[in-house]
Amino acid sequence: MKLVIGNKAYSSWSLRGWLACKQSGLPFDEVVVPLYDAEWEKRRQGDEFAPSSGKVPILWDGEAVVWDSLAIVDYLADKVGRDRFWPDDEAARAMARSMAAEMHSSFAALRKKHSMNVRQIFPAQRPDDDVLVDLQRIMELWAQARARFGGGGDFLFGTFGAADIMYAPVVTRIVTYQLPIARFAQGYMQAMFDHPFMQDWIAGAQEEDWVIEQYEQPAPSALR
Amino acid sequence: MKLVIGNKAYSSWSLRGWLACKQSGLPFDEVVVPLYDAEWEKRRQGDEFAPSSGKVPILWDGEAVVWDSLAIVDYLADKVGRDRFWPDDEAARAMARSMAAEMHSSFAALRKKHSMNVRQIFPAQRPDDDVLVDLQRIMELWAQARARFGGGGDFLFGTFGAADIMYAPVVTRIVTYQLPIARFAQGYMQAMFDHPFMQDWIAGAQEEDWVIEQYEQPAPSALR
Repeated sequence: MKLVIGNKAYSSWSLRGWLACKQSGLPFDEVVVPLYDAEWEKRRQGDEFAPSSGKVPILWDGEAVVWDSLAIVDYLADKVGRDRFWPDDEAARAMARSMAAEMHSSFAALRKKHSMNVRQIFPAQRPDDDVLVDLQRIMELWAQARARFGGGGDFLFGTFGAADIMYAPVVTRIVTYQLPIARFAQGYMQAMFDHPFMQDWIAGAQEEDWVIEQYEQPAPSALR
Repeated sequence: MKLVIGNKAYSSWSLRGWLACKQSGLPFDEVVVPLYDAEWEKRRQGDEFAPSSGKVPILWDGEAVVWDSLAIVDYLADKVGRDRFWPDDEAARAMARSMAAEMHSSFAALRKKHSMNVRQIFPAQRPDDDVLVDLQRIMELWAQARARFGGGGDFLFGTFGAADIMYAPVVTRIVTYQLPIARFAQGYMQAMFDHPFMQDWIAGAQEEDWVIEQYEQPAPSALR
């Protein structure tokens, strides 16, 4: 398999697709194409990006191409067994699938105003109200998942899985922008940062020498 | 099982969740809560809507609750077997999952400017450029799916499945707003309209007597 991703420092959807590949346990090559520089503009016109019309991540696997992070999760779950990604219990799986899908379609304010940057910690500022609404919803979802289905484990549904993969870039954004969170979430966030896959990704981001100015500024909402 | 949905005339995400339930073959009760009227505002505060904080569709199944249409598809695929929703061939399934996910997260212009109304056909007007970009991408996806994996069947991947379910409201919008499409797509759209589930939904919408003014106007882009 080959996974085409953007910069590890900045590309949140790439992080999701990459975590899914790691979690599958299958070997894969990673191809990092830096976002927004000259190479990116040229390469995203090429065949490698054709299926997604220029977006990352893209997973190539023989005849199969998967160009969306949630689709990559389920494509790989089909391949290696659902239990590696989703809870076995039906009610837990219903919630995990709903939470993953909500992350996939929602939280636009948080995503737009606090873009991922796993190399930085910016000064804390009061986030915009719409960001606070997103954060409150996320805290409720995390709290419910852990209370109902965490089973004493470190992650949202006990062991690391698809829901954690989908919310991983939220965890890094909370740290980067020092966003306000519920007390219970500290332990979960620490577990996410301590996970070897996350450590591996963040180390990779530190080694990158691409710097994109727009991602090296605190979000506009924090500048006021 | 119980599926909570909005008006059949207007609620595109409800259509997706409802088609998924029909496709599962499992019996289910439907609870229609009209969007945006007094009852809607009251009911969406209630326990029935608590898991999604007020959005439809929501599937209740014993202890399990699923509050997103794509999650409903895969929750039901887990329950009745993947083959009812997704292609068996790995490359076809990779594309179907990617297309479904892209519908789930994208095409904001088409969705916002041409809201679903399965009871109306409005006069044709030139759509905005961003809507045309969305339509062109959708035509490319449909064409590729049918050419590579349609196998001579009537639907995107031959037989009716998850990809058709996710794009069903696009099919009705194209008719409602008389949007320009590629010639090949006529046959596919006819097959979608002839499908008994779609006939059943549209008949249900005709029987509804709720009328919401904002959905009974052509999209603003068509008024200029």
